[in-house]
Amino acid sequence: MTTAKRDTYTPETLLTVAVRVFNERGYDGTSMEHLSKAAGISKSSIYHHVAGKEELLRRAVSRALEGLFGILDEPGATRGRAIERVEYVTRRTVEVLIAELPYVTLLLRVRGNTKAERWAMERRREFDQRVAELLKAAVADGDLRSDVDIRLATRLLFGMVNSLVEWYRPQPGGDAEGEQLADTVVQLAFEGMRSDR
Amino acid sequence: MTTAKRDTYTPETLLTVAVRVFNERGYDGTSMEHLSKAAGISKSSIYHHVAGKEELLRRAVSRALEGLFGILDEPGATRGRAIERVEYVTRRTVEVLIAELPYVTLLLRVRGNTKAERWAMERRREFDQRVAELLKAAVADGDLRSDVDIRLATRLLFGMVNSLVEWYRPQPGGDAEGEQLADTVVQLAFEGMRSDR
Repeated sequence: MTTAKRDTYTPETLLTVAVRVFNERGYDGTSMEHLSKAAGISKSSIYHHVAGKEELLRRAVSRALEGLFGILDEPGATRGRAIERVEYVTRRTVEVLIAELPYVTLLLRVRGNTKAERWAMERRREFDQRVAELLKAAVADGDLRSDVDIRLATRLLFGMVNSLVEWYRPQPGGDAEGEQLADTVVQLAFEGMRSDR
Repeated sequence: MTTAKRDTYTPETLLTVAVRVFNERGYDGTSMEHLSKAAGISKSSIYHHVAGKEELLRRAVSRALEGLFGILDEPGATRGRAIERVEYVTRRTVEVLIAELPYVTLLLRVRGNTKAERWAMERRREFDQRVAELLKAAVADGDLRSDVDIRLATRLLFGMVNSLVEWYRPQPGGDAEGEQLADTVVQLAFEGMRSDR
């Protein structure tokens, strides 16, 4: 039993707790009861802040999606040669993953069993699609290899980038480490692991 | 309600059903009740074949691990220059992922909440470690870039390779497609996406 806390939550701080529980138990496996226990407040207190579990999911993945789609409007993503824009977007995607780690983790783990989850997956696919278009433009410029299927390359690129949420744990004051990680991902994805160039 | 089937299962065919349910619901979220419903036989019939859920997990991940560790004993993985061995192991890992897709999917999704899951994760780390050693040898030979941390490179490589279980769905008679996928993964991982070489 947890001792009930006085409800000092805001929708924002409650979201932090909810995202942690969703990531631990899976969204499907999380009940309002679990959220109430983790937050140490009653279910009715939670309903005072949000309409339910689904609203918490929407808010959480919206935060991740805003971070990701925001990248595409940055000057580095909209100006210059396609290859430079692709590398910029890849680097910034790693940075957003690190900055919004629990939120992006949740976005990448939703399985599509409910409407809110399907909406999240749809928006995520939209982001992937936008990056695939950039890759296509870079192939047309002759800067990316044309012998690889773009859809496949996009999936493998995101496979590499998104794997971060499974193993990367930021250290306090580890901003330099995050930068280095972003550099390494861009290097490996675009130049490969071989040294002979 | 499902109509109870006559129990015509063997431990092997029961495993196929169990792995499907584990992958759909998560191992933690699967009860003997779920397995009984999915198989269409009673719980006591299941206990006739196996000691319980944990034995099914052990059998399933053992199959994935045997496939993966088997690669390391193949001539392509034990003879020749380290870089060739690394590329061989990467290609074969993709092939084993495809051939044993549900089993490897389960292996990659276990979260470590029970002893059997922790054992699976430990063995999986051991495989990653063996590949990391090969990468290290290839760096020492001067064939892989030395400016990238090996542990990080190993994680990103497996991030790319393992992402297959999330999106790859084999087509009937799609062996050629699987081959092409293995080629592409090796090309992108070692040569990168840029065309300028």
